[in-house]
Amino acid sequence: MVQANNLGLALRARARNGELSGHTSGLAPDLVQGNLMILPAQYAGDFLLFCQRNPKPCPLLGVSAPGEVAFPGLGQDIDIRTDLPRYRVWRDGDLVNEPVDVRAVWRDDLVSFVIGCSFSFEQALLDAGVPLRHVAQGRNVAMYKTHLSTVAAGPFHGPMVVSMRPMKAAHAIRAVQITSRFPGVHGAPVHLGDPGQIGISRLDAPDYGDAVEVLPDELPVFWACGVTPQAVVQAARLPFCITHAPGAMLVTDLTNVSLASL
Amino acid sequence: MVQANNLGLALRARARNGELSGHTSGLAPDLVQGNLMILPAQYAGDFLLFCQRNPKPCPLLGVSAPGEVAFPGLGQDIDIRTDLPRYRVWRDGDLVNEPVDVRAVWRDDLVSFVIGCSFSFEQALLDAGVPLRHVAQGRNVAMYKTHLSTVAAGPFHGPMVVSMRPMKAAHAIRAVQITSRFPGVHGAPVHLGDPGQIGISRLDAPDYGDAVEVLPDELPVFWACGVTPQAVVQAARLPFCITHAPGAMLVTDLTNVSLASL
Repeated sequence: MVQANNLGLALRARARNGELSGHTSGLAPDLVQGNLMILPAQYAGDFLLFCQRNPKPCPLLGVSAPGEVAFPGLGQDIDIRTDLPRYRVWRDGDLVNEPVDVRAVWRDDLVSFVIGCSFSFEQALLDAGVPLRHVAQGRNVAMYKTHLSTVAAGPFHGPMVVSMRPMKAAHAIRAVQITSRFPGVHGAPVHLGDPGQIGISRLDAPDYGDAVEVLPDELPVFWACGVTPQAVVQAARLPFCITHAPGAMLVTDLTNVSLASL
Repeated sequence: MVQANNLGLALRARARNGELSGHTSGLAPDLVQGNLMILPAQYAGDFLLFCQRNPKPCPLLGVSAPGEVAFPGLGQDIDIRTDLPRYRVWRDGDLVNEPVDVRAVWRDDLVSFVIGCSFSFEQALLDAGVPLRHVAQGRNVAMYKTHLSTVAAGPFHGPMVVSMRPMKAAHAIRAVQITSRFPGVHGAPVHLGDPGQIGISRLDAPDYGDAVEVLPDELPVFWACGVTPQAVVQAARLPFCITHAPGAMLVTDLTNVSLASL
């Protein structure tokens, strides 16, 4: 379902012409935002297989043909080279540039993957009255490497990364119900309670994002995270790849509500 | 949906003729079993309101007219006075008898309430591969008074009673999903994790049923329990009422599957 108004198109136009070069969080709360991974075609088959084998951390919203820059299934007139506010360019696993468009490094063999993002279910949680501390405090969500393993495909393997949101028990139960409706954006939690059971030793020292307090009457609730494919691709040290810059997502024309399974 | 075979009818006939006078657990795993509460009509309005106000502990499957003994919506040829294996008769809040039928104390002003039972969702959990320790060990489920309050109606008020099942986190998440599909038999858990948050000081000393071990890698998961209305009615010390004896339920002709909301 494509939203009637043109907010997604307008935000992509602002990114394209350079007016928007920062975070997209909160700019379009009703619209699906996506993580981006662009790889040479020779790696695309294995990465596609990795996503298929690990749907909770890697829920695919769209995959392009090699060299193609449009995503008509995700939005009107998308140019994947220009329509995100900021990109990261990686060579041999190292970050080499953070440009606002990637036309200068574009190649006809590049395949683009758009992967679902927890922004979609966070809006559903807030709408249902489940508070999210990192949102209230204007921080990035806390993310951790775990000892939960992914299923490998070609050069892609490594641990699952999870995001953590502290919740009272009744909210955690409600959050399982709500996020179960969104299998296309990570779905239900993968764990709750004792962080040590999934290999997290210190909640106050996340591997990505910002630490957030867990109060004595709260449980940490853990979801599979879209950072997993990024970590896996970086660990594979491909000669070349492109991602979005953290928080600077592809704003699509799809509504979050349209992703709900029920 | 009434089951095609006549297992429910056959079990009720065995209770009626005295062949079956004990527990019904496991006798008809696919069929809905119900808790029974029979009250004089003068209290029935308030009790109905209490159930309406507290649907999680008191999910109503059926209510009779005064004096009526059939429940055509729940099964073929039910006589509520004879078709449960064993009853409890209460006077002024005290248990006075445990007969195998209640024809001798029947009155034309009695209203019968059949209330959903967790047997229904337990079968769904087992079918989904979620182990239940009390079932594996052949024990009654552990039940606790909490400091969660019910919403009062007339003389009926008191704390919510909950049942507890220990689970690994991933099973607890799956159990939230599965039991959310069964709002007619208590639905999703009301709490998980720290028992002290709902006023339970000792998990090894349940107020009803049998204690069951919670292993270090498990969370206690708590559901609203059909013992709540029984405890509330007993506390109200009505001059007269009848309940089923613990575990000796009304076996209906409805399938558990037919109660699933999705």
